[in-house]
Amino acid sequence: MPEQSIVSADMRENNISISDVRDFESLLGSDLEQVKKEMQLIASHSLNGTQVGAVLDDAFSTAGKMIRPRLVLLSGSFGPFYEVKKDKLFKLAAMIELTHLASLIHDDIVDDAPFRRGERSVQSKYGKDAAVYAGDFIICRINYTLARENMNEAAAVLSQTIEHMCEGEIGQAMCRYREDVSTDDYLWNIQGKTTALFKAACQLGASEMGCSKETVSKLSAFGECLGTMFQLRDDLLDFTSDEAQIGKETHKDFRDGIYTMPVLMTLKDPEGRKVLLPIIQENSKHRISDSDIARMEEAVVRYGGTDATVREIRRMSQRCLSILGSLDYCAAVQVFRNILKLLYI
Amino acid sequence: MPEQSIVSADMRENNISISDVRDFESLLGSDLEQVKKEMQLIASHSLNGTQVGAVLDDAFSTAGKMIRPRLVLLSGSFGPFYEVKKDKLFKLAAMIELTHLASLIHDDIVDDAPFRRGERSVQSKYGKDAAVYAGDFIICRINYTLARENMNEAAAVLSQTIEHMCEGEIGQAMCRYREDVSTDDYLWNIQGKTTALFKAACQLGASEMGCSKETVSKLSAFGECLGTMFQLRDDLLDFTSDEAQIGKETHKDFRDGIYTMPVLMTLKDPEGRKVLLPIIQENSKHRISDSDIARMEEAVVRYGGTDATVREIRRMSQRCLSILGSLDYCAAVQVFRNILKLLYI
Repeated sequence: MPEQSIVSADMRENNISISDVRDFESLLGSDLEQVKKEMQLIASHSLNGTQVGAVLDDAFSTAGKMIRPRLVLLSGSFGPFYEVKKDKLFKLAAMIELTHLASLIHDDIVDDAPFRRGERSVQSKYGKDAAVYAGDFIICRINYTLARENMNEAAAVLSQTIEHMCEGEIGQAMCRYREDVSTDDYLWNIQGKTTALFKAACQLGASEMGCSKETVSKLSAFGECLGTMFQLRDDLLDFTSDEAQIGKETHKDFRDGIYTMPVLMTLKDPEGRKVLLPIIQENSKHRISDSDIARMEEAVVRYGGTDATVREIRRMSQRCLSILGSLDYCAAVQVFRNILKLLYI
Repeated sequence: MPEQSIVSADMRENNISISDVRDFESLLGSDLEQVKKEMQLIASHSLNGTQVGAVLDDAFSTAGKMIRPRLVLLSGSFGPFYEVKKDKLFKLAAMIELTHLASLIHDDIVDDAPFRRGERSVQSKYGKDAAVYAGDFIICRINYTLARENMNEAAAVLSQTIEHMCEGEIGQAMCRYREDVSTDDYLWNIQGKTTALFKAACQLGASEMGCSKETVSKLSAFGECLGTMFQLRDDLLDFTSDEAQIGKETHKDFRDGIYTMPVLMTLKDPEGRKVLLPIIQENSKHRISDSDIARMEEAVVRYGGTDATVREIRRMSQRCLSILGSLDYCAAVQVFRNILKLLYI
């Protein structure tokens, strides 16, 4: 996308320049360093020499894209306490990212995933004992910090979010290998798996920094759409990029009986269904061949599974933009738009 | 033990009769019913038809001895708010028992234990997926309730307690199959595994009901000694009772490389060490024979392992009695003594 497209009509109208947005983005960068320090502080441990200590050290050294803490910081910047209570916002952003880390660690136990973020997964490297307790440990530290900071509202929302995340994983497990999974089932599951924490990040960032109820609710809805878009995109990439690019075994979800949007939309096409159904039935019985996987992938592209997913991603992106348009224009709105552009297909 | 021994000099001096104590004990019984209802309320779920829902239903239907909630109620009865804030105490007792349940469920994943409380373990019955999320779900509900009730002190203490419980399990995992484990290592591990939650039950029961700092600290120390005594007794029973009696596979700990007090004390005896060491070395390599297990058990009894453990249990019991003696005498003190008698070896 050409660079000048960043200068939107909004920006001109609101007298915000590219350099304002860039300044804000670079501020965000140094804020994220603070968030990482807070993460270290909250989850500091004396478990050196134990498997769990190694799990925790590994988790911190292979930091991800930090998208959830970014959402906290950006949403928080809409609030009147943003400048004066930034320390609290950093803590909150750290706890949101730690929640994400803990969920990755526990999900690995269930998935038996050999890789995560291109690295070996916790349980394949250190055993499931370490994975169970490392996840529990992080959750304890988050709750301890919330209690000590008297952040009761955040504690309640975050507990419910984690509960929702569990429900999403449970729902996904219930749907595994089933040929009759609906797109509604899928959307419900990803609400828990991914969307819930995106939503909580925006909601809590805004509410802790004193935004009005209306702004909190808008940012919360924005987080929800962005999370859904994010997961749809992740599931689409399984069909449109190769293993090296996304750092995990391609079509692991399919082999594990987790049928995502591209597959479910292909099943809605009569021709696509003819190809996919026998493969899905085989898949529930034994490990299917690489040529079956190739036929499945070809069908998903040919019979509209990927196209339909792209359309859904774009629909979510439009919703996000429309929510952003209803907010008071500021540098954070432009950074949110830049994030949307990065995720756009 | 003859019944009249309940009427101690203390009771006569303090004008408390057997029937006072009995009344209090039966009140405790109906209070425990309230606690069970609170447990259901806190962890109510709409997960019917899922494996996790089944795990939760099972967990509630096979209630244990409810010793931890008893400790909460008894410790709470020392405080000035006991009669007026009983609802809060029931909630707290419920959360302590739910913490215990969650820890049993997560420990099962690690132990790969086929049985728990005489029933099949969660993960062997429903798979580890369900076990991970059922445990996480319960912890979320506890934290949500604590946040909503503004019980920040309890939230902080309970989070630290769960962290300590994790550390105990991690410590135990680190010690597995090692012939050089010391009794100090063992005591450190059981501090986390068992003692921490006994301590928290007494401490929080007393503090939430407004006891003085001194009384909170005494009851906290009492919980600590009682928890240690409880775990020592549990480990002793592995050597002095048969499988049916305790409802789990005898010497599962030993086979799993978890060497408890009776074994560690036997290793301190030169003759006992001669018998045990080769068996322990074999145990780390493959599944040892039943005759090796029988030789191990015989050595533990013959070379003083069980006797030394009995002595330690009695020492803990004495400490508990001495703390109780320093508290203002009331019906709860007598019920605590009755509990000690039940646990006495």
